[in-house]
Amino acid sequence: MENQLFWDKIIDFPLEGRSEKPRQSGLTMVIDKGMGPAAVKDWLTLNAPFVDYMKFSFGTSALYPEDVLCEKIACVRNSGIDVYPGGTFLEIALWRGKLDEYLRRSLDLGYSCIEVSDGTLDIEASTRRETIEKARGMGFSVITEVGQKDARDSKPLSALLDQIRDDLRAGASKVIVEARESGKSVVIFDGEGKLRRDEMEQLAAAAPEGTLIWEAPDKKQQHQLIERFGPNVNLGNIPPDEVIALESLRRGLRGDTFRSAIQRKKERA
Amino acid sequence: MENQLFWDKIIDFPLEGRSEKPRQSGLTMVIDKGMGPAAVKDWLTLNAPFVDYMKFSFGTSALYPEDVLCEKIACVRNSGIDVYPGGTFLEIALWRGKLDEYLRRSLDLGYSCIEVSDGTLDIEASTRRETIEKARGMGFSVITEVGQKDARDSKPLSALLDQIRDDLRAGASKVIVEARESGKSVVIFDGEGKLRRDEMEQLAAAAPEGTLIWEAPDKKQQHQLIERFGPNVNLGNIPPDEVIALESLRRGLRGDTFRSAIQRKKERA
Amino acid sequence: MENQLFWDKIIDFPLEGRSEKPRQSGLTMVIDKGMGPAAVKDWLTLNAPFVDYMKFSFGTSALYPEDVLCEKIACVRNSGIDVYPGGTFLEIALWRGKLDEYLRRSLDLGYSCIEVSDGTLDIEASTRRETIEKARGMGFSVITEVGQKDARDSKPLSALLDQIRDDLRAGASKVIVEARESGKSVVIFDGEGKLRRDEMEQLAAAAPEGTLIWEAPDKKQQHQLIERFGPNVNLGNIPPDEVIALESLRRGLRGDTFRSAIQRKKERA
Repeated sequence: MENQLFWDKIIDFPLEGRSEKPRQSGLTMVIDKGMGPAAVKDWLTLNAPFVDYMKFSFGTSALYPEDVLCEKIACVRNSGIDVYPGGTFLEIALWRGKLDEYLRRSLDLGYSCIEVSDGTLDIEASTRRETIEKARGMGFSVITEVGQKDARDSKPLSALLDQIRDDLRAGASKVIVEARESGKSVVIFDGEGKLRRDEMEQLAAAAPEGTLIWEAPDKKQQHQLIERFGPNVNLGNIPPDEVIALESLRRGLRGDTFRSAIQRKKERA
Repeated sequence: MENQLFWDKIIDFPLEGRSEKPRQSGLTMVIDKGMGPAAVKDWLTLNAPFVDYMKFSFGTSALYPEDVLCEKIACVRNSGIDVYPGGTFLEIALWRGKLDEYLRRSLDLGYSCIEVSDGTLDIEASTRRETIEKARGMGFSVITEVGQKDARDSKPLSALLDQIRDDLRAGASKVIVEARESGKSVVIFDGEGKLRRDEMEQLAAAAPEGTLIWEAPDKKQQHQLIERFGPNVNLGNIPPDEVIALESLRRGLRGDTFRSAIQRKKERA
Repeated sequence: MENQLFWDKIIDFPLEGRSEKPRQSGLTMVIDKGMGPAAVKDWLTLNAPFVDYMKFSFGTSALYPEDVLCEKIACVRNSGIDVYPGGTFLEIALWRGKLDEYLRRSLDLGYSCIEVSDGTLDIEASTRRETIEKARGMGFSVITEVGQKDARDSKPLSALLDQIRDDLRAGASKVIVEARESGKSVVIFDGEGKLRRDEMEQLAAAAPEGTLIWEAPDKKQQHQLIERFGPNVNLGNIPPDEVIALESLRRGLRGDTFRSAIQRKKERA
């Protein structure tokens, strides 16, 4: 990163302490909806240092020509980014009774990580645990997700807290808190996308520091989570073309977080 | 498509029966706002199998260098996609009394299809019919559009039903139901973008199956139309970077339609 | 532009009198959030004739590898577009007491223009004036911005009018009226993004014609400003992939402005 952040040498950024890759916290997870092979390479030129995970959303992996998919996966991994198919695709495989085939195929294609979710399907706790263990046994890192995609399916917070504990015990490295693409009416966000602070604090208290990844598609949501947890909060479901803007937010290079840095300095003075 | 959907061999998709190209129904029409020549080629790598029509929106064709426009048109057509300039541009040509020049130029540029609309201009029924017939006579396929761009101009539903019948009789292959880029306050969508089911059912009943293309820019709208008409409903005004997501929705690879597939299976059991 | 607008020869555009580059009014300013080096070249193929200024938003310049940044700046400048780092970045430099280093580095990187704003930081009028003069002295063109990013910081309109007068006197070529990325609750737009006509008229009256650039991220806002000031109004904060659509709007090639052109013609008849 010497060359990368050459401005650093003349200007200290307002929010200090942003971690560099490879890192255990301050992770940015990007959701890809189907960038073309040339677009993804071009995008990596600027974005690779700021992205830790990339998800090929829901079942979109199923719609690529095999060679294009393999090349795209390799490209992303070679830039130091963990890459995985969306959790919905794994749920479909479970529903069809094809988990082993699904994991084997994912390994062959080059995926380095597996997401285990129950966003749509009801999955027994024992099945979930075995799925995590099986994927880990095959060499994948595992991310799990808590929270339902449809408000009608939503579970009490206590059930999510149990799931987080069980998932980490079974071998998951990180747990994503679902917010969907919309960021509305889901776990820590209300119907207008506003933060439910109580739910957020209870979830944060239940998991070891740095293990939760908060999905936060909207800039205001990202800003609030950075204000609460600092520049090294883990954030997910970031659209590819918002990564640089988010990184600016993390480092205080954008009005919102720069403003807070000024205020904190005034309060200290 | 053997190689394309290689996952098919191990996992049946939740929504079955999705048609493959070339197809008469299940069409996806994309609205292009000016992708660059390299971007469009890269985009076709993944998206060509899932797109049937591409519109260069409103009068944007007028803003390209001629060689870039010709190359882009050729690229898209060579991927088995019908391509046409936006209906507004034809309305301008009619308004200026330059229809013949407009059609001749469109043919020279390589366009394979013409959209006949009255989204902005008042056009006599006889002029509309003659325009369709003239374009057909020159070898274009013709798509017409019903519904006004400005809520102040909107016509009663019965007038749209007459137009659909007349357009098909004059030689149009498909009729698009206008929803604008916003998907609000227009024909089958109310001021908040919600479906007006009555209007939709009356339109659907009036046209032979597969002849209507519903503009539906929003994911929720696409979902509702797929729920009602199945995976092979014709959908239009899809942004280029939403095609893969829509195709996932059509095949039940996304939470929303996967959820319905699960419920239907439960109900049958 | 002979070859560019070859359609012109057969169809006069509904809104006439659109200026061509290089121009003093009718400017389009684009906000870049981090297009990759290949994407920006491809984008210029179609968009260069319609763009006058490009801003690398807030502090994003700080996140590029130096060689990629220089190449991107050179590319954009070679297409006849003035390019500058976001105003927030200059505010950070001022806050850190590093203005001279900031300007020197910006010059070395190839930036041709500097934005002087107080969107986040409180800046003394004298500091603002000296900053403008210093940048001008080093050969930059200078754009200033009036209006605060956070509604809590907003100033009375009279203060903005004074600032505009002072900025132009100190050597600024253009003054941007802040609307943020959202276009809501800021200077000429209310909480729903609707135009506050009184404020707009007072600002317009205070500045020599063609010196204000209105930030207007939303299509409806662009439309209203074109209706009021004509096709050659200066507009800013345009997303890169909306430039062609905006140019269509300026020339009456889109439903909204085409409709007005028809009505005016009817009224004259």
